Parts: sequence; structure tokens; C-alpha cells
Amino acid sequence: MKVVIDAMGGDHAPQAIVEGALLAVEAIQNLEITLVGDQEKIAPYLTNDRNISVIHTTSVITGEDEPVRAVRKKKDASLVLMAKEVKEARADACISAGNTGALMSAGLFQVGRIKGIERPALSPTLPTIDQQGFVLLDVGANVDAKPKHLVQYGIMGSIYSEKVRGVSRPRVGLLNVGTEEGKGNELTKQAFELLQDAPIHFIGNIEARDLLDGVADVVVTDGFSGNIALKTIEGTALTMFKMLKQTMMSSLKTKLAASVLKPDLKQLKNQLDYAEYGGAGLFGLAAPVIKAHGSSNARAIFSAIKQAQHMVEFQVTETIEKTIAPTNKAEEE
Amino acid sequence: MKVVIDAMGGDHAPQAIVEGALLAVEAIQNLEITLVGDQEKIAPYLTNDRNISVIHTTSVITGEDEPVRAVRKKKDASLVLMAKEVKEARADACISAGNTGALMSAGLFQVGRIKGIERPALSPTLPTIDQQGFVLLDVGANVDAKPKHLVQYGIMGSIYSEKVRGVSRPRVGLLNVGTEEGKGNELTKQAFELLQDAPIHFIGNIEARDLLDGVADVVVTDGFSGNIALKTIEGTALTMFKMLKQTMMSSLKTKLAASVLKPDLKQLKNQLDYAEYGGAGLFGLAAPVIKAHGSSNARAIFSAIKQAQHMVEFQVTETIEKTIAPTNKAEEE
Repeated sequence: MKVVIDAMGGDHAPQAIVEGALLAVEAIQNLEITLVGDQEKIAPYLTNDRNISVIHTTSVITGEDEPVRAVRKKKDASLVLMAKEVKEARADACISAGNTGALMSAGLFQVGRIKGIERPALSPTLPTIDQQGFVLLDVGANVDAKPKHLVQYGIMGSIYSEKVRGVSRPRVGLLNVGTEEGKGNELTKQAFELLQDAPIHFIGNIEARDLLDGVADVVVTDGFSGNIALKTIEGTALTMFKMLKQTMMSSLKTKLAASVLKPDLKQLKNQLDYAEYGGAGLFGLAAPVIKAHGSSNARAIFSAIKQAQHMVEFQVTETIEKTIAPTNKAEEE
Repeated sequence: MKVVIDAMGGDHAPQAIVEGALLAVEAIQNLEITLVGDQEKIAPYLTNDRNISVIHTTSVITGEDEPVRAVRKKKDASLVLMAKEVKEARADACISAGNTGALMSAGLFQVGRIKGIERPALSPTLPTIDQQGFVLLDVGANVDAKPKHLVQYGIMGSIYSEKVRGVSRPRVGLLNVGTEEGKGNELTKQAFELLQDAPIHFIGNIEARDLLDGVADVVVTDGFSGNIALKTIEGTALTMFKMLKQTMMSSLKTKLAASVLKPDLKQLKNQLDYAEYGGAGLFGLAAPVIKAHGSSNARAIFSAIKQAQHMVEFQVTETIEKTIAPTNKAEEE
């Protein structure tokens, strides 16, 4: 199996990317990795090139680039050449920690969609208090979603959870403003009806308040609301850690107490760190495309590689295609 | 000035409501309060009835009642009689900690809208790390909002922040999936254009990640996304406190350290407690209607009463009406 990685994407590129790749070829049998990026910048970290090859390019899409335009203009950018490797079947899956919009654009136009999937969905796995985690989709690939898109998200999230995360009969919930049937806006009311007939274990509406409590294994929502939920979780957690730190640094007494708690608090922070759960899959594309977090360290890149490997190995893409086909057929009839 | 309160709404009714009312008439000059509810249940807590009168009824709308139907059927419910006091001009403002949907329904049908406002907005004030707080609207009164509704929210939130919260030239932000102009779904893209021409200090798009950092004094969004944002903040904060508690109770060593930090952590929790900022105004109605948090204690009810008093005193409703009229006229031309 071959995974291709954008070596220049992310805050700690290329070091974290190369180190993550080294960890992966060490740990995973029959894995080959292609790194795409500046050979000169990659070389210092590439201490062993067993099963790792490099495609050299100096062009890079940055976080400031306008995604669609950048993908079109910078044809030699590391991210674009990476997607091309998948398009031309020289790799089975690809990973970037770079510009999210550019990855979505390259994924859509180069890798292409699974037949029958109208819109791909950006699908991170987020932490829960019981440490089981849940898949939230979509968090921004498609900000004006239609009811049937949400059904496709439910199917894709369910297949991923079962195959890659090992959840049997994943509970699929619809993010809504209340748990009762009939709640919501036009989109969720219509999606609710369709989800009831979908080939998934649909458990009904769930509220944002309960997301981190593990009420569902898969939570479907439109890309706008999903983005708001994701970033609100991030922002609230970050603010609370900041406030906690202020509180703990406020006097000598609290500083001493804090030093005792430090290792446990660090563990708490790790528990909430969703890099631990791998990257966000761009579900619905013809091959696994994974967006690793921008701040990914080597460990997070390693997680994303394992995730890509599992998606290929357990044939997530093929299963989605097979499952979606009859639902589209039913719709046509 | 007279404020009427649903004495039977909320988790700690009627005790917290009556005690909050007692605090208020003590602290605020020329304030009269009418409590609506079960005389027998109110009496034990009503230790002094100076400036407090009671309208007796035993009918109550509970949290389980379907809001619109309950308001229509239970004509003698404390919440409905409360709204009637405002409708028939015997009170200047009303407050309930009960069923939110029922309050919105009673507000809309009994108190009525301000001329020119199409949809009222449920508008809580949320905490920020700098303790200035911000008004978020709408959080669920109108889950299928149109671009012009968001503009009206911006105007109402701005007037409230200036008059009641004492913010000069309030910064109004549009909740969106990115900060750059042109980002977003159809709704936010169109609202962005309109907000630029509105009589407010519009600062552009803001991201959910930055909400608690105080990037804006007023944040406008549709009721669906606002509800998701609000409940995600609540849920994340609650989950983190739960996890923090688990961490601190994990060993004797951490328990000792935790006991030292306890008062400071309590203060941190208070800082995040938005009951401190009063209730959520139902902006756009012909008189101040305030939804106090369901878990309100006497202090939170007192805050909500002060809030109602300020809204009346500083003529928030009248100012909204005057400011909205020309924007509607401009649209017609």
C-alpha cells in the first residue's frame, strides 16, 4: 500500500511530516510513503529512506492562498502534486496538514467523487468524556447542504465508524436545536424523515450540549453548523485552559497546588486533543484523502497515516460506493 | 415602573423567584413587582410584601408542554397571565425562567412585535475571558432566518449593548466559517452585504473559535447556528469541569492540591456562569420580555429584574422602533 503526503503542509512541516512518516514505515508492514516537497528541506530529517521516496518541488500553497485559485494556478505545489499521485493511481491515499480549502479543492477536482455522492464531507473525529470519540460531519466542505446530503453523511460516517473505528452498529444522530421529533429548521426537519429510511442506525435528534458526552458515534449536520460546533468546542476548551492557568498562577499557594496537578492536567489536555484520533477524512472522494490538523506533530501525522492505511485496508471507499448506489436508485424510482 | 414575573417558572420556583423579587424591591427605587403563581406556594417565601403584589393561579406550563399548544390551551397559566399584564399595559416588562418556547409564543402573540421587526430574537449575554461579555443573537427564536433578519438582530443587539451594557460603539460581528469577506453560506454572504450598510459598527465576519475571547460586543447569526454555538459552549464547559473534577479526585495527592484551589476554581466557574449577566432578552417585542435561565437562583432573578428595569429606563424598545423604521423605508424605496 502506498500513502502520499504533502511534506510542506502544516505548522511544523516538513519536520513533523518526515518524522511521522519514519514512525509509520517502522510500525506498519508493507507500507510505502511518498513525500512531496522541497528535497533540501526534507533531507535533514529523513534519517532513513527505507520505503520512503520523495517527489521534489519547491512550490507550496500557504494558509493565506485563496484555495480554489491556488490549486488551479500552482500546478506544481506539493499539495497538488500529492493529489495527482492518487489521481494517476500511483498512491492509494493522501494526507496534508496544509490549507484545508486547497485540499478540498484538489481532492474534488483531482481525486474526484465517489459515484453517487453529491458532496464530500470534512469529517473529524472528536473526543468524548468516555474517550470513545465521535465522528462529526460535515464541518465545512459544503456550507449549503440539502437534506439528502445529510443522509449521505450518515451513511459515510457510519461505514467509517464501523470499519475503521471498530464501532458495531454505530449510532447516528442529527445535530438539532432539540431532541424531540419535529424540531429544527427546514433542513433538519426534512433530513430527519430521510434519515429514518436510510440503511443506518439512526437515533434521532441530538443537542450540541451533549456532543462531548458521547450520545452518538456519528453526528451529521450541514457544513456551516458543523463548523460552528467544531470551532466552538475548540475555542471554549482553549479559553477554559487559559482561565485555568490564570487561576493557578494567581498566588504562591495556587502555584504550588498547580505543580502537583500538572501531570494530571496535561493528561486531561491530551484527552481533549483530537489529533490523537487522527485527521479529518474528506469522506465521499474516490480515495481516502485526509486533512491532518495544522498544528500536527509527528505523532499526529503517524495517526493520520494509520487512519489512511485502515481506510484503504478495510475498503471504506468501496463500501460507501456499494451502499450509496441503491439509495440513489430508490430515489429515482 | 412595574415588572411582572412568572413565579412558577424554573427549577427553583417559586422560592428563587420570590427571593429574587425581594432583593430587587430592596435595591431598586420605585420598582413594583407582580408575581403570578400559586399564592399558597408563594406565601412561605414572601416575608415582606412592600411593593410586591401577587396574581393567583394554579395553572402552570411545564418544560414538557408543547409550547404553542400550551399557550393556547392553558389560558390561566402563570406564564400566560404574566404576558397578559404587559399586553394590557399593567406592567412595563416581564420575566420567566420557565418553558422558553412558551415564553416566545406568549411574547409573540400577547406582547406582540415592534413595528418593523419581522422576527424577535432570543439574545443571551455570554461571558468572555476579559469579563466584558457579548450579546449573541439569535439563539433559537427563528431557526430559518433571512439575511434582513440578521441585520435587524445587529441593530437590536447594538442598541441593547449601548444602552443597557454601557458599551460605546458596540462592535457587531457576523458569525461565520471564516473571517475573510466572501466566506460563508448563502445566508451569511447576503447578510454581510446588508450589514455593511446598516446603522451599526459592523466589524465583519468572526469565527466561533474566538467567541469567548471578546472579538465582538454583539454577534449575529441565525437561530439554528446560534443555538448550536450556545449549547456547544455550555456542553464543553460542563464536560471540562466534569473531567477536571475526575482528574482532581484521582489520588490523595491531587485531592489535597484541589482543596487548595477550590475557592479559585469556584470563582472561575462563576466567571463562566452567564446567569451573572442576567437573562436572555427576547429582542424585537413591544416591551422587554426576559427569559431567565431555568436553573436561576435568587441572584440570577435579581439580575434579570435589573436588566428589565434598565431596558425600560433606557427606552430600548422605543429606540429600536425609531432606528428600524428608516431601514425598512430605505428597503421599500
